[in-house]
Amino acid sequence: MGQEKYTAVQSGSIITPKGFSAGGLHCGLKKTDRHDLGAILCEVPAVAAAVYTTNVFQAAPLKVTRESLQNGRLQAVVVNSGNANACTGQQGETDAYTMRAEAAQQLGVAEQDVAVASTGVIGELLKMDRVISGIAGLPQRLSGEASGAEDFSQAILTTDLVKKEACVSVDVNGKTVTIAGAAKGSGMIHPNMATMLAFMTTDAVIEADDLQLLLRKATDTTFNMITVDGDTSTNDMLVAMASGLAENETLNPSHPDWAAFAAGFTYVCQVLAQAIARDGEGATKLVEVCVNGAVSDLSARAIAKTVIGSSLVKSAVFGADANWGRIIAAVGRAGEPVNPETVDIHIGDISVLEGSRPVVFDEDEALEYLKGDTVRIVVDLHQAEGQATAWGCDLTYDYVRINAAYRT
Amino acid sequence: MGQEKYTAVQSGSIITPKGFSAGGLHCGLKKTDRHDLGAILCEVPAVAAAVYTTNVFQAAPLKVTRESLQNGRLQAVVVNSGNANACTGQQGETDAYTMRAEAAQQLGVAEQDVAVASTGVIGELLKMDRVISGIAGLPQRLSGEASGAEDFSQAILTTDLVKKEACVSVDVNGKTVTIAGAAKGSGMIHPNMATMLAFMTTDAVIEADDLQLLLRKATDTTFNMITVDGDTSTNDMLVAMASGLAENETLNPSHPDWAAFAAGFTYVCQVLAQAIARDGEGATKLVEVCVNGAVSDLSARAIAKTVIGSSLVKSAVFGADANWGRIIAAVGRAGEPVNPETVDIHIGDISVLEGSRPVVFDEDEALEYLKGDTVRIVVDLHQAEGQATAWGCDLTYDYVRINAAYRT
Repeated sequence: MGQEKYTAVQSGSIITPKGFSAGGLHCGLKKTDRHDLGAILCEVPAVAAAVYTTNVFQAAPLKVTRESLQNGRLQAVVVNSGNANACTGQQGETDAYTMRAEAAQQLGVAEQDVAVASTGVIGELLKMDRVISGIAGLPQRLSGEASGAEDFSQAILTTDLVKKEACVSVDVNGKTVTIAGAAKGSGMIHPNMATMLAFMTTDAVIEADDLQLLLRKATDTTFNMITVDGDTSTNDMLVAMASGLAENETLNPSHPDWAAFAAGFTYVCQVLAQAIARDGEGATKLVEVCVNGAVSDLSARAIAKTVIGSSLVKSAVFGADANWGRIIAAVGRAGEPVNPETVDIHIGDISVLEGSRPVVFDEDEALEYLKGDTVRIVVDLHQAEGQATAWGCDLTYDYVRINAAYRT
Repeated sequence: MGQEKYTAVQSGSIITPKGFSAGGLHCGLKKTDRHDLGAILCEVPAVAAAVYTTNVFQAAPLKVTRESLQNGRLQAVVVNSGNANACTGQQGETDAYTMRAEAAQQLGVAEQDVAVASTGVIGELLKMDRVISGIAGLPQRLSGEASGAEDFSQAILTTDLVKKEACVSVDVNGKTVTIAGAAKGSGMIHPNMATMLAFMTTDAVIEADDLQLLLRKATDTTFNMITVDGDTSTNDMLVAMASGLAENETLNPSHPDWAAFAAGFTYVCQVLAQAIARDGEGATKLVEVCVNGAVSDLSARAIAKTVIGSSLVKSAVFGADANWGRIIAAVGRAGEPVNPETVDIHIGDISVLEGSRPVVFDEDEALEYLKGDTVRIVVDLHQAEGQATAWGCDLTYDYVRINAAYRT
């Protein structure tokens, strides 16, 4: 990742890059008094990019946000939690457009420069009176201080246990460029609750096409490499805004500092993605699966995702069981080219399989390692240079409890 | 399935078709005194066919069985449980060949007419002294009576709670042809335990190529449509033997009774497949997902398997929650052509989604239905004529308990 190229900003958040303020409040969509409506505002129209869920059933706010993004620009994002506005038909679309119009008016920006996102229950109409009065209260809650970002980060959560933030800075021809992000996502904990949402801000000067390219590439190796339960929501959305206020030379792939910027950008995505995996429903550990020596990076990704998604591997990690048989069974069913004679597997630093043959290892040492809060599994295929890393979590009683709970 | 064409044979089993005997005993591979070694013997060399796991890591007995099947003929099958003989290298292959040779000698058949199958722990060498003395005891245990089939069915189980058998008869130009099967499979309950095994016997006169074709086709809509946890074992094997002793006209796809034979054969596969799903690790219910109106049968299969494999859907069924949001989210991520505006969903007879819009339904009625031991979910896509049915089970605390238990 070239970690030397960027610097983590302690206590940084989405308002750290120049030009951004944020805020959140409780408008009444969640049953408790937790925040359920938030916004990010940029003091200038920001260059913007987004990626969306690949689910066929896309929620209404995604349609509206796609439309706003057509000009490659955003100045504000408005988000509600507690209701996904998905499978809500024509009325749902009307409601998403209304959210955009109200936010534009209250925040004093153009309607087509506002993105809309929702997360929560599928199939119920938004209580628009609450949303509208909530949006009216947003301007006075927006702040360029840490409290504004804190309120926003809380407002996008559903069943998440912790807020998820990251911030780094990069030197671009002598100017400090800052990149930050906030995300939510835990699975579907209250039935029909869904959605991973992530919002990134930067003050970099960059063209929309290059930002989109970078966002897509960073997503492939970070957000697209996590799984909690294999289910893709109808509302997933990742939006990035670049205010341009860092006054660096315009960044593009030929700029000498592009690699540093891309590394920092990807690092923020990775921190947020890992945080989502660690906060997966019922999870007690973060699990990291590295695949090396595959025929290609794409192939390595497919294998890593198969292993991280295996219910049997996830259960074994919960039980602190160094069960390499399940790991190799998952590798073998990934549908990718694998030489069945040359596979090595490590759990942490402990070698458990070498040349596809069992290694006698210290079970107590393995048990001790597997009881930790982060478990790393490394699979070496010894075929070529393809590599990938995926993140997930263990499968626990709490996952079943959370998801078997009755919906209403 | 054309159920009128064949007749279920009550109390029928793999020894009901003419020419077959079977048996089983305890040789010491399982820790308890349950049977762990079994055999099926045909009094004449039988026409035979098989399908195997698609996992890259195939266990040693699969290699030996493939070699035996090259002549399209088998006279005996020898099976052990308690040890999968997988990831055991050269010694594992030698052991599988030894099992074949010993069984051939003791049962008085040609070595290349013996199939070998194993199921149990991955990565441990077989205790061959126990296997060999066990095989020596098999001839006196073989029986053409029900007790022989019972002993065999018990000998192939690992963590299964119940044995799985089915038997039907079909009229082929005035002769009664019988088709039967025995299977095992529950998931991977004691860590590293794996494997679905199924064995079918029939007395039909049929060519090996036609039997292979039928076996593959029947597998696609039955065994390949079940999932307990999405993990494909290294040892899956389905073997069919036809003794030819029913003296029917040779069956082939142009024979007027082929459809009846194929329907009966497929029905036996389906009963065994459903029994495996219902006996899935920790399962409290059989779940059936029917997809209609897809662009093709293949597309319908992919969608049905995505829904049946969704941890969120499985947890909701365990919790008796009519959570259609999770069903539609799974349909939408299957990667198949789906019109997001025209989907109907029924849970049992209860309509919960119509034209992709929520239907107000009686929650108490749904709860009552979902508390039953079989749950049927029907998804109508209204696009074309493609249809498929998949079977699985709910995701429960017991699944996690079973699979988080320490391996040794």
